[in-house]
Amino acid sequence: MHPAERVLLGPGPSPVPQRVLRALAAPTLGHLDPQYLTIMDEVCELLRQVFRTRNALTFPVSGTGMAGMECAAVNLVEPGDEVIVGVNGVFGTRMKDVMERCGAVVHALEAPWGETFTNEQVAAAFAAHPKARLLGIVHAETSTGAHQPLEGLAAIARSHGALLLVDAVTSLGGHELRVDDWEIDAIYSGTQKCLSCPPGLSPVSFGPRALARMDARKTKVQSWYLDVSMLRKYYSGGGGGRVYHHTAPINMTYALHEALTIVLEEGLEARIARHAAMHQRLRRGLEALGLRYVPSRSLHTLNCIRIPDGADDAGVRRRLLEEYGIEIGAGLGPMAGKAWRIGLMGHGATVRNVDLVLAALGNCLNRPAASA
Amino acid sequence: MHPAERVLLGPGPSPVPQRVLRALAAPTLGHLDPQYLTIMDEVCELLRQVFRTRNALTFPVSGTGMAGMECAAVNLVEPGDEVIVGVNGVFGTRMKDVMERCGAVVHALEAPWGETFTNEQVAAAFAAHPKARLLGIVHAETSTGAHQPLEGLAAIARSHGALLLVDAVTSLGGHELRVDDWEIDAIYSGTQKCLSCPPGLSPVSFGPRALARMDARKTKVQSWYLDVSMLRKYYSGGGGGRVYHHTAPINMTYALHEALTIVLEEGLEARIARHAAMHQRLRRGLEALGLRYVPSRSLHTLNCIRIPDGADDAGVRRRLLEEYGIEIGAGLGPMAGKAWRIGLMGHGATVRNVDLVLAALGNCLNRPAASA
Repeated sequence: MHPAERVLLGPGPSPVPQRVLRALAAPTLGHLDPQYLTIMDEVCELLRQVFRTRNALTFPVSGTGMAGMECAAVNLVEPGDEVIVGVNGVFGTRMKDVMERCGAVVHALEAPWGETFTNEQVAAAFAAHPKARLLGIVHAETSTGAHQPLEGLAAIARSHGALLLVDAVTSLGGHELRVDDWEIDAIYSGTQKCLSCPPGLSPVSFGPRALARMDARKTKVQSWYLDVSMLRKYYSGGGGGRVYHHTAPINMTYALHEALTIVLEEGLEARIARHAAMHQRLRRGLEALGLRYVPSRSLHTLNCIRIPDGADDAGVRRRLLEEYGIEIGAGLGPMAGKAWRIGLMGHGATVRNVDLVLAALGNCLNRPAASA
Repeated sequence: MHPAERVLLGPGPSPVPQRVLRALAAPTLGHLDPQYLTIMDEVCELLRQVFRTRNALTFPVSGTGMAGMECAAVNLVEPGDEVIVGVNGVFGTRMKDVMERCGAVVHALEAPWGETFTNEQVAAAFAAHPKARLLGIVHAETSTGAHQPLEGLAAIARSHGALLLVDAVTSLGGHELRVDDWEIDAIYSGTQKCLSCPPGLSPVSFGPRALARMDARKTKVQSWYLDVSMLRKYYSGGGGGRVYHHTAPINMTYALHEALTIVLEEGLEARIARHAAMHQRLRRGLEALGLRYVPSRSLHTLNCIRIPDGADDAGVRRRLLEEYGIEIGAGLGPMAGKAWRIGLMGHGATVRNVDLVLAALGNCLNRPAASA
């Protein structure tokens, strides 16, 4: 097993620090070993700090980011529930699909790919569908690079008795994100983006209004694996009240512990500022190369750019991979062949990587790279 | 992150070889990197060998063993389907629950905990419920240590047009298991038992009759994350036809690759014989200590014994853990306080561990350990 040492500048996974890889390879404990339970409790507490929340029910779902989305949906939605989902890219489209599989009546609030939603548009959607019980929205649309503002959305949802569910897969640990201050009721993320941990876990957090919604369910959660009514007895049971549910991915939990420790050693504010600075450095360089962004409001963590006329999409990506060992992302869904996605996430958001990818891209496009 | 080096002799996780931990810590590749796709294709091929199947759709689900169970259920069952589930322990009980969450009408074929089912009992269940479309049965009941014979069950199921679904979480890689010869239509397992890989993936395999059942579905699979109609485009897409679904747990896939390689280096027959021999060695020692088995037909991989009168359940397990660093399992569900579970799985099924746990248990019970 000798995988190449890539420079991971795609939409995730992001580069994983050696410290995290070493933690991953620590001796496997049993999932009910007191030592492991301490590690897992610490992971939940570290996640609270990174999510900026005091939500007791904050834990890593034993699956990748899409399992976190599904966990939120199956627990918060019952058949026949009306919900509003913002659809402006692949992940909003998926959230609509996942909600419909839970029996929800989904009112899609649509925007062109690359655009985001205004609070006025969201308010209008609730005016049109006043019975909607949940607003689902993607903070960081990984398919378009669009950065959705979240402030003020909770107030709109709450005025209609609805919950606010946020997809933060590509923003947690890289963008400003305040679960409690912004009154987000439920949120999910992934480990392999701005936390710079390998993929395999999906951090989630559920606030008191989300828990009340779950407690009032009339139907059983359709997924046993993701049923929070059982998971909470393991993840927030504490003391003697902890009940076994499933065997957690133990070594991945070690890795997440180390990755979150690194995030907090750097400090959330400093880390967010670093992502902003690296994005700006990359943007200047890309624009100097004559490249244009897809989204109006770009994420700092993911830069989605239009493939210039005449450029060979697959050929450029292959040269970047083969000559430089650099991975960037292809366009996803309707953006296939039209966009490239350059991720600057977590451990990958460095001056070294920004200047490297600019030099490499300039070379592959036969364009002189301006000094960044 | 400095977890203790335990001797893992519980119901899983089992001890993980250093080779597997080193593979786990290899550099993270992207999930669409050609190198990673090769590794993943190899994992699927290695799994086919370990499952003894030629099923094209053989892959690791991105979750722990219970995600594998749920993957089988959500894809093979539609609302209103009648199914027969063998219930003689925690995992049969869970399978019934999972099936019901999929809308199945479950006919529970029950046996006392610790017992198994005869082919005659299964035939009688089909006679009573001739419309049953699936038989779900647990090969290795981790809660009781009972070993369910599987030969002949497929013929009974097929004579009623039903599929055979097998839970092989605690048997794959440790017990005789022949998916194709025994005409098993669908099967799931876990990585942290007899494969001696950390938990986090669930190997599954679906045969042609299972795929035909899925292709004939009238309803959408209720889980997006586990929807095989999409997963198969990633795992058996091959060449240019591969379609991204979710970000696979990349480093866990490395670990599984190494774990399966070790299994096949030893050879399946030799490995199964080793598990049998270690079970017999342990059984002789336990019986010399005056301990009795719970199940009539014990697994080799998991030894479920009655806690002797007067012994302090939690106290003995705590001493084993604190003085010896040995983990054994408590009783699960109705067996809590009544049974201990000693796993001899994969890398853990060694003379050294058998004689160690016998010595330690004899000491903690104040019983002289007979020479094993």
